[in-house]
Amino acid sequence: MIVIKIGGSLGTEVKSLAKEIAEISKSEKIVIVHGGSYETTEISKKLGKDAKFVTSVSGFRSRYTDFETIQIMEMVMAGKINKELVRLLQKSGVNAFGLSGADGKVLLAKRKESIKIIENGKKKILKDDFTGKVENVNKELIKILMDKDYLPVICPLAISYDGDIVNTDGDRAAAAIASALSADLIIMTNVDGFLKDGKLVTELSTLEIEESYKFAEGGMKKKLLAAKEAIDNGSSRVIIARGDLDRPLNNALIGKRTVISK
Amino acid sequence: MIVIKIGGSLGTEVKSLAKEIAEISKSEKIVIVHGGSYETTEISKKLGKDAKFVTSVSGFRSRYTDFETIQIMEMVMAGKINKELVRLLQKSGVNAFGLSGADGKVLLAKRKESIKIIENGKKKILKDDFTGKVENVNKELIKILMDKDYLPVICPLAISYDGDIVNTDGDRAAAAIASALSADLIIMTNVDGFLKDGKLVTELSTLEIEESYKFAEGGMKKKLLAAKEAIDNGSSRVIIARGDLDRPLNNALIGKRTVISK
Repeated sequence: MIVIKIGGSLGTEVKSLAKEIAEISKSEKIVIVHGGSYETTEISKKLGKDAKFVTSVSGFRSRYTDFETIQIMEMVMAGKINKELVRLLQKSGVNAFGLSGADGKVLLAKRKESIKIIENGKKKILKDDFTGKVENVNKELIKILMDKDYLPVICPLAISYDGDIVNTDGDRAAAAIASALSADLIIMTNVDGFLKDGKLVTELSTLEIEESYKFAEGGMKKKLLAAKEAIDNGSSRVIIARGDLDRPLNNALIGKRTVISK
Repeated sequence: MIVIKIGGSLGTEVKSLAKEIAEISKSEKIVIVHGGSYETTEISKKLGKDAKFVTSVSGFRSRYTDFETIQIMEMVMAGKINKELVRLLQKSGVNAFGLSGADGKVLLAKRKESIKIIENGKKKILKDDFTGKVENVNKELIKILMDKDYLPVICPLAISYDGDIVNTDGDRAAAAIASALSADLIIMTNVDGFLKDGKLVTELSTLEIEESYKFAEGGMKKKLLAAKEAIDNGSSRVIIARGDLDRPLNNALIGKRTVISK
């Protein structure tokens, strides 16, 4: 079983990926998890609401997600991107079933009660943020769908214990899903894998991950964290690979990429 | 089993409906089908694309649904409205599961190859329209969800035989779902029911429906058609009732409304 995390900024490459998934899904169960951050920013802007990013006191940059923003994310992620993937897969002969993590509590998250941020050099507490961390995956429901030969396409919006819809980190949500299903995880991105001093690391153990964080650039740090979480909780292998290729899945499985295991 | 069609233009009333559904769903299986036409028009406008309506040669007015429009419908219907209902129901303690008819081919539709319209008095053929008519309901999947105590919330986008996502009429999609499940159908609207010469018709048989079309105003004609289709194909009862009330479900079941049966 393979969980494939597709980045939100992958464009036309998704078409070739859909064809590869159609081939491979004949012999292997697949679950797709997708992002949508980039397009959320675009559509937000068109709707007259500029995306706002905040920096936490611990130095992580994240999207400020008020109620209006989470509604836009529902539109872009659960609506536009999720259904685009369903359409492409259905056109390739795969019976794709799109859902958000909020549906049927597929992803149950603890909503962050507040975030401490730094704004103009001053500490500030945000309370109206709809973000959270996945704490439980309804694997029974995902398995029911797969047993009936549907291919789940999941967007990483989750439901909180209070019934609010919250945004969660896509890589870490994919890791939670993969480990709950004891599946391998492939994280598609726009680089070849984890680069250390500009050189691709082809194999990495979870023991080496923590000391690797300092070499990780941009979103790679979160991907390494997600990889560690996946393996610590039940996945045997995580692959970080480039998605914008002719045959990205084939490359992820046997080509130039980073393979992380215990 | 009851299928409830909620109009897209129902606003805050949906909150009280969610509470009623939470009560009734303890003893009766419920499926929700919702619209979204009004909000699609609003969001379209904000995104800089004015909604366009066309009139067919047979006199029916419908939304011109090019690819960009169907993508906006995916955002508004499968995203915003569907997840708003999921959130309200989850907050009321119901394990709602939102999906579009395109997911897992829940609604399989024949896409209209072309529409003959009248524009400025001239006949014209539209070919890039993504609308269709539901021809098959995947009742197995809906039943699996209900057997596991999820309450399906379905938006009436469907998948075509070619894997395109198409818009379908919400009332008639709800009728197709209700009849496939041999369920009763409640169509919520913004009037008391079917009015004949301004007077509420409380009971109507399917035999009387065809002669009633000429008295039907606005969207009521399609609701009567949907009612007839539901009963002809397996529902025993269709109720057309007002949704913008304090307790709309209670009113639909025992109050002022139109009940249609064989």
